[in-house]
Amino acid sequence: MTSELSLPVDSALALARRCAAAMWADDQASRRLGMQLMAVAPGRSTLSMTVREDMVNGHGSCHGGFIAALADSAFAFACNTYDEVTVAAGFDITFVAPARLGDELVADAVERSRFGRSGLYDVTVSCHRGADDTVIAEFRGRSRSLGRPHLPTQGVDPNRVDPQQHVDRSTP
Amino acid sequence: MTSELSLPVDSALALARRCAAAMWADDQASRRLGMQLMAVAPGRSTLSMTVREDMVNGHGSCHGGFIAALADSAFAFACNTYDEVTVAAGFDITFVAPARLGDELVADAVERSRFGRSGLYDVTVSCHRGADDTVIAEFRGRSRSLGRPHLPTQGVDPNRVDPQQHVDRSTP
Amino acid sequence: MTSELSLPVDSALALARRCAAAMWADDQASRRLGMQLMAVAPGRSTLSMTVREDMVNGHGSCHGGFIAALADSAFAFACNTYDEVTVAAGFDITFVAPARLGDELVADAVERSRFGRSGLYDVTVSCHRGADDTVIAEFRGRSRSLGRPHLPTQGVDPNRVDPQQHVDRSTP
Amino acid sequence: MTSELSLPVDSALALARRCAAAMWADDQASRRLGMQLMAVAPGRSTLSMTVREDMVNGHGSCHGGFIAALADSAFAFACNTYDEVTVAAGFDITFVAPARLGDELVADAVERSRFGRSGLYDVTVSCHRGADDTVIAEFRGRSRSLGRPHLPTQGVDPNRVDPQQHVDRSTP
Repeated sequence: MTSELSLPVDSALALARRCAAAMWADDQASRRLGMQLMAVAPGRSTLSMTVREDMVNGHGSCHGGFIAALADSAFAFACNTYDEVTVAAGFDITFVAPARLGDELVADAVERSRFGRSGLYDVTVSCHRGADDTVIAEFRGRSRSLGRPHLPTQGVDPNRVDPQQHVDRSTP
Repeated sequence: MTSELSLPVDSALALARRCAAAMWADDQASRRLGMQLMAVAPGRSTLSMTVREDMVNGHGSCHGGFIAALADSAFAFACNTYDEVTVAAGFDITFVAPARLGDELVADAVERSRFGRSGLYDVTVSCHRGADDTVIAEFRGRSRSLGRPHLPTQGVDPNRVDPQQHVDRSTP
Repeated sequence: MTSELSLPVDSALALARRCAAAMWADDQASRRLGMQLMAVAPGRSTLSMTVREDMVNGHGSCHGGFIAALADSAFAFACNTYDEVTVAAGFDITFVAPARLGDELVADAVERSRFGRSGLYDVTVSCHRGADDTVIAEFRGRSRSLGRPHLPTQGVDPNRVDPQQHVDRSTP
Repeated sequence: MTSELSLPVDSALALARRCAAAMWADDQASRRLGMQLMAVAPGRSTLSMTVREDMVNGHGSCHGGFIAALADSAFAFACNTYDEVTVAAGFDITFVAPARLGDELVADAVERSRFGRSGLYDVTVSCHRGADDTVIAEFRGRSRSLGRPHLPTQGVDPNRVDPQQHVDRSTP
């Protein structure tokens, strides 16, 4: 059990953290890309990722797909903070500046709107270079809730989570 | 020198192949994701990628970022078939169905429009399951030409390509 | 009753036409913009609109909003051809070339994908100038079915359509 | 000459207002849709529009194209506040809630990013209903500067503006 699960469960922030802990445990793809979950709050998340050698071309520029993957993960964590399994319906990304080998990219996801089972989340991917923050990409994700809970029912042993209750975030 | 470079240089198809060969040599990120360049023609390309264990979550669903990366690579190869260095300005992707561990994904990129230095490319990512083709995602990429050639000038030794002439595809 | 309603109801094409006739009767906004419904088929439609003086700026260029409105209407007719009330969740448009006062714009909408209650439709807005077709804009619409029928149940007097059964196409 | 033109020309805000005044004088399409320019500042604008009878279907819902047109105009005013003729390359819109006959819609445009000659602007269209603000649509516009000034050169009689210097905002 992670430390998040020991927080008081009666606040929105605690719920967001419990959801993130459950998702993170399941999301080996994000972990294997070296992503780190830096912060989570209701409708928000911050993830980081360092551009590795297997993410760049011969001249040191990061493949756009990895920048999109980082933003997509931040989006997934932000839209899954209400204990409703929520998946990516799609997203739009605009590339603002190239990312380079060794850059530490930070993706900040913020909820813009929720309506019915749909949601919109804006993610800015930036890079700290010296004293400056350079914007690398701007992303807008479209989410869709599946209307079922993320976490085991209270009172049930949280160690006996049914894996099928976890998010399958590629399903539209 | 790859076999593509020995094709007659006076046809659009041969030019598309020479551009693709130059890009492929440089694009270690796509190669390390296990992508294969199956076909290329003016304004078109087909790439494949098998969903690996490091691309899925604990339940075997592929992270959307890898699906986007495959489509983004197909887009990059399709928009770089005219010997003009052309970069991704951005893209939109809609997830249609989940991809699973072991699925062989195929991304077909087709040019929809070119105007000035801009272009639009539609990419369908699908998966062959038994007799059926399942659509996994629909992608539309927005490209921007940098207005400089991809390949070394004719008559110049093609083995002495200046790497700075190659595409830096993350630059908008 | 329009002529479409007298076609055989057992074919997909006839159903598409009946849906379009019901929508058209209700869509005074499209009619007041001077749009004409040129063709409809399952998952497809073609609409035209001539650029009027109240659609242009002082130099004769059409406001992008009217080009989007034409494409949006073509999208609405195409995604409502299966007798399921279907609304626009959103769309993306890229402007390719300016439209001018007096241009006759034609919007061709084609279904790209349907999955669950969602759909994707591509609309090309073009303009016939002399012998050439100029592309004005490329549009991709995202639809969502509400899961209820468009048309009155068979056997019921079609003149007694409940207006609430008709599409409210702005609802996401 | 409007009052904006008498403001001090040495501030960014005054420049934004002069650009807006020049655009507004030229934009009869927005005026004929009943839009009102409520505020402008560098990278920002606010426009309003009341949903009229010719904008709705038979049940009183506003056609999505008019909502997009309002957002598109707000975007155009926001991205043209730096005295560089800047046009819409495209936009994405998500419909959040229907707008009704008589609703007063307000579009708030805010710059998200500028890089090279490109820019991204987020526009929220909302509606004041009683004490509440309801979000109607979320829009993200992609702009492209043409690199030439909007306003007549200082010292030149501003009443002799060359119309070709004004924005043709449908050109990508």
